[in-house]
Amino acid sequence: MPETVTTHASMRALTEDADRAYELDRQHVFHSWSAQELINPLVITRAEGSYVWDGQGRKLLDFTSQLVYTNLGHGHPRIVEAIQEQAAALCTVAPQYANGTRSEAARLIASHTPGDLNRVFFTNGGADANEHAIRMARLHTGKHKVLSTYRSYHGGTQLAINVTGDPRRWPNDTGSTGNVHFFGPFLYRSPFHSTTEQEERERALDHLEQVIALEGPSTIAAVILESIPGTAGIMIPPPGYLRGVRELCDKHGIVFIADEVMSGFGRSGEWFAIEHAGVVPDLLTFAKGVNSGYVPLGGVAISDAIFQSFAKRPYPGGLTYSGHPLACAAAVASIEVMEAERIVEHSAALGEEVFGPSLRSLAERHQWIGEVRGVGAFWAIELVADRETREPLAPYGGSSPEMGAVIAATMANGVLPFANFNRIHAVPPINISAEEAGEGIRALDAALGEARAAVASVTG
Amino acid sequence: MPETVTTHASMRALTEDADRAYELDRQHVFHSWSAQELINPLVITRAEGSYVWDGQGRKLLDFTSQLVYTNLGHGHPRIVEAIQEQAAALCTVAPQYANGTRSEAARLIASHTPGDLNRVFFTNGGADANEHAIRMARLHTGKHKVLSTYRSYHGGTQLAINVTGDPRRWPNDTGSTGNVHFFGPFLYRSPFHSTTEQEERERALDHLEQVIALEGPSTIAAVILESIPGTAGIMIPPPGYLRGVRELCDKHGIVFIADEVMSGFGRSGEWFAIEHAGVVPDLLTFAKGVNSGYVPLGGVAISDAIFQSFAKRPYPGGLTYSGHPLACAAAVASIEVMEAERIVEHSAALGEEVFGPSLRSLAERHQWIGEVRGVGAFWAIELVADRETREPLAPYGGSSPEMGAVIAATMANGVLPFANFNRIHAVPPINISAEEAGEGIRALDAALGEARAAVASVTG
Ligand SMILES: Cc1ncc(COP(=O)(O)O)c(C=O)c1O
Ligand SMILES: Cc1ncc(COP(=O)(O)O)c(C=O)c1O
Repeated sequence: MPETVTTHASMRALTEDADRAYELDRQHVFHSWSAQELINPLVITRAEGSYVWDGQGRKLLDFTSQLVYTNLGHGHPRIVEAIQEQAAALCTVAPQYANGTRSEAARLIASHTPGDLNRVFFTNGGADANEHAIRMARLHTGKHKVLSTYRSYHGGTQLAINVTGDPRRWPNDTGSTGNVHFFGPFLYRSPFHSTTEQEERERALDHLEQVIALEGPSTIAAVILESIPGTAGIMIPPPGYLRGVRELCDKHGIVFIADEVMSGFGRSGEWFAIEHAGVVPDLLTFAKGVNSGYVPLGGVAISDAIFQSFAKRPYPGGLTYSGHPLACAAAVASIEVMEAERIVEHSAALGEEVFGPSLRSLAERHQWIGEVRGVGAFWAIELVADRETREPLAPYGGSSPEMGAVIAATMANGVLPFANFNRIHAVPPINISAEEAGEGIRALDAALGEARAAVASVTG
Repeated sequence: MPETVTTHASMRALTEDADRAYELDRQHVFHSWSAQELINPLVITRAEGSYVWDGQGRKLLDFTSQLVYTNLGHGHPRIVEAIQEQAAALCTVAPQYANGTRSEAARLIASHTPGDLNRVFFTNGGADANEHAIRMARLHTGKHKVLSTYRSYHGGTQLAINVTGDPRRWPNDTGSTGNVHFFGPFLYRSPFHSTTEQEERERALDHLEQVIALEGPSTIAAVILESIPGTAGIMIPPPGYLRGVRELCDKHGIVFIADEVMSGFGRSGEWFAIEHAGVVPDLLTFAKGVNSGYVPLGGVAISDAIFQSFAKRPYPGGLTYSGHPLACAAAVASIEVMEAERIVEHSAALGEEVFGPSLRSLAERHQWIGEVRGVGAFWAIELVADRETREPLAPYGGSSPEMGAVIAATMANGVLPFANFNRIHAVPPINISAEEAGEGIRALDAALGEARAAVASVTG
């Protein structure tokens, strides 16, 4: 065997050299969801807890959790240590073998998923989790169609993006069969002309019942829903809605898939957002918060009945890195930290004591805020040009100078914001302190004032 | 913020406790491609270089590289160190930012991919790499159909499995449009009744030309091929075949996608197997060997022309963990090791000096061996019941008592074998020493003799 290498690049030096990072990025890295020559990516050179540092050494409070996944913030020592220890012990084992770290991760996940979701199929992320959940539902029911909502996101692979209800589906909407979109509840922009939560729940369930009846119950394998739609706007479903969906699924032999990729693992102030509704889905997909994204990991939690479907006949799906030990080590550590540090309770308290009250007070002071809504560490600020007509501050699927100004002002105030169309989401690490959360909200407050003034001075 | 956790599970202890690993696996882990109650997974508790240890403390030479991905073996100190260092510096950054480790990984990959494949879109594994490559081809050409071969594997997500030509597609073959399968060259079981390599090349190209003409060139976005089909049987294409495919694609405005997920990164004795043909594809997909699978990573290397297609309009695809720094750190280290230790040259030499000669000598001694074929550290032994009729020792898509006996005897001789239908593949880490490779081949030799005797004694 050849001799061992002696010289090598230092990962820390690579990470910290912002100029080189930027230059090589522009030469060689192809970015997600982007026109490659129209972007100007911010370099991240360092990160710690709820903060990141950019290429100019500027410290920013991360109110995005990156893409709503670093639930325990950056550089959590316990997760870093678990990764380092697992890397030394055994980085990887193929899925056909058994491995202790994977087994422990599956046990811990199953101990927190509701009801009889006792088995875990591991994937690399959220998209493949949803692809496999849909396959399980199709084979379990022998039916084909999948019902999903407009205003949703389920992932970037071909089936997942076609189930998605977001403009990112449009350029990919070719040649996918059996995907039917319906309307979920969204009182602020009610598709059903409702004026109360109860009315919205009743009409949304009536609508779903009609869609099922008219598509044909005998053709429908699954309903897939984000328990709380995330990127599409953090629309908390009205009380009773998810229970009603569960009942419709039971009545018609339809598998209920809860997509908890973004809402799971404490984000909403419960381990899983569907627990707010006291309902157990047949399949629950997760990723992101399962290990704060320190190593790519996703998966499907599976009910006993669906597990039994594949007890004696093969499940026809898989992937090379299913149950990757390094990713599972990060999950074991993350879940242990969440338990020991009572992170889920902390998230709930953040929502009740910090985000709820302070964002509502922002709404009183800023004309642009049409609605704030959320729970736990999962909040949306819906910005409107006009509070009466509720005309969004940027069109669906687009941006606007106003939104551009809000984003720029938020960053100028030291906060990295999560923006989608006409919304700003406050989705920091869920172990953020109340003080840091307050700092972020004050920055948003200042930014909204400054942006409005800046736009007024231009159009003025 | 809550207090810090003090007690926790040790990852090494979890990894080494075989009984607990097995028990919890059976209770909570759902395995790829399996009937969950009919499997009895081997526990892997430790691994080093080309060896793994099972739950009984048995040491096995890994002639599989797990699923043909641990190209640099287990526990390579340089990769482990890079992961540990990156974990301490910065585990994760979302894809919209720039990051130095990701930039360096992209630079290193692009420095080895052939021709103008200068940009890298990172994914989590092989399936999503192929899904995104197909999307790029469809949008670049404005056409929809994808041509792929029977006897191929391209991944487990819905589009990737439908492009696949393997029995694992069958239960998933519902509702995918635009997937057309054709025959690739395979002289030993020629679909074209050829008797020489040259004839096989000519007839295979003629066949593809006819399929293109009859499907309609104006409907075809891409031809996707494994440069050397892997799991389907390591069928080295005859000289000139891939060049002919390249010419047909050029003639008809079809994107040529080379799937190098298994064959890439030195497996075949070149950085990429397509280099044997001196041809540059438009898109090249990779995973596995890019970082020996120490952290999940895959990707698409993109030609300048296709990059230009998405310079000013957005590429409508992405994923949360695209360009994950921890995965990229493992890639940087792996590629540096491959360069410094001259691993690609070592792989080529293994094929010429060890595997080729010794497997051919096995074939002389064992009636069951119909053909051995391969290159580098990428070898298939095709087992037949009858050398004249070439009747396989197990049917396509199935197994047999004979194949079961070969697998059991190989393990009893201390080697973990890669088996698919009627084939045993010799696909060890490509940095395996000649001595270790020889040890594995001697075990196969003994196993083939013992299995034949065992089966003969049963059937009498
Ligand atoms: C609700 C939901 N589902 C699925 C996904 C897809 O996950 P991934 O990007 O890991 O494929 C996301 C990602 O944002 C998500 O928010
Ligand atoms: C040639 C080829 N393409 C694609 C894949 C899929 O890769 P993954 O399992 O990482 O999705 C594989 C996996 O074995 C492969 O061998």
